Amino acid sequence: MPLVRISLQSGKPESYGAAICQQVYEAMRETLNIPDGDRFQVITEHSEGTLVADPNFMAMKRSASFVLIQIFLSRGRNVQTKQALYRSIADRLTKSPGIRPDDVMTVLTEVGLEDWSFGRGEAQYLLNPPAWSKETKRSA
Amino acid sequence: MPLVRISLQSGKPESYGAAICQQVYEAMRETLNIPDGDRFQVITEHSEGTLVADPNFMAMKRSASFVLIQIFLSRGRNVQTKQALYRSIADRLTKSPGIRPDDVMTVLTEVGLEDWSFGRGEAQYLLNPPAWSKETKRSA
Amino acid sequence: MPLVRISLQSGKPESYGAAICQQVYEAMRETLNIPDGDRFQVITEHSEGTLVADPNFMAMKRSASFVLIQIFLSRGRNVQTKQALYRSIADRLTKSPGIRPDDVMTVLTEVGLEDWSFGRGEAQYLLNPPAWSKETKRSA
Repeated sequence: MPLVRISLQSGKPESYGAAICQQVYEAMRETLNIPDGDRFQVITEHSEGTLVADPNFMAMKRSASFVLIQIFLSRGRNVQTKQALYRSIADRLTKSPGIRPDDVMTVLTEVGLEDWSFGRGEAQYLLNPPAWSKETKRSA
Repeated sequence: MPLVRISLQSGKPESYGAAICQQVYEAMRETLNIPDGDRFQVITEHSEGTLVADPNFMAMKRSASFVLIQIFLSRGRNVQTKQALYRSIADRLTKSPGIRPDDVMTVLTEVGLEDWSFGRGEAQYLLNPPAWSKETKRSA
Repeated sequence: MPLVRISLQSGKPESYGAAICQQVYEAMRETLNIPDGDRFQVITEHSEGTLVADPNFMAMKRSASFVLIQIFLSRGRNVQTKQALYRSIADRLTKSPGIRPDDVMTVLTEVGLEDWSFGRGEAQYLLNPPAWSKETKRSA
């Protein structure tokens, strides 16, 4: 269910964006408990000057390889889960495609379960709530 | 007031994106009760590999013609209204430009009435709330 | 902390987009009390037909120079602050790069303090809340 928007510098090989997609997906699998195949990702490439990130804000050392990852996901994850997600994304991107942790920015935006239609004009989560949301209710 | 972001495969004729814009606008007119002319839409085209959608998640059969429609709209629409919106978008895109319902994903993100400035530096909905929001309050 | 997505017509010189970025940043500095260097902005350029804005909705007179500014920011700013932000953006863009106020649309989307990781896999605002959020609590 997460919708992922990835913004990166243009001029990288296609495998570079693909690796980011794969690692972000695996980080969400690992920390958000999303099911196999729940993968919807949009990449936009940006020439210099159209992807602006301060080089030092929050005591980072950002380079031209800065990547922005914005994830739209359903409400209900707690703070610890979000922290685990950030950690997993940064760790994974360090390994593949090899992005320095200072260059990885992640921003979340929460929506409701009723805000998703995966196809056929249906609101699938209203008909069949995802496993993690039922666990949240059970433990509440 | 909805802001619509449409992501589709590159290489389609200009009329293809225009038809999607038109049909999504008409679906919002029909189901969200937005006024005539309330139309703000951004299209981005994507080469293969930069618009990623699992081919089978949620029991769909997605093709290369997958289209992602993300709509930012004011809070206050109920679940039935959202379901009607998804239905209308899928039905209309089937007719024009001819997209299989399995290839249509719609995601909503809600914002407040105070979160919109349509121009001139003013927050128009604070000065003059939209008709549908007054009806919501009246019926509440 | 705000993440800014700017959509404008293609074909403008690079200095045009840079001026918008700078003015939006300064408007946020002035009205949102964000710290020096809190600047993360993504520009996308659009050919005709892929950035759609009704020419007259809300009694505006929009031209081909319409620009859409979507800002993701943490919850907690009141209505007056948001109005000041819209005003400042419109006023500043009039001066540089010279955009008519009718052509400036601003849309906000709120997220939580826990929804930001500025790098290194950390949720910086959980470890160290921003100054403005502490002032909000103090005055509450």
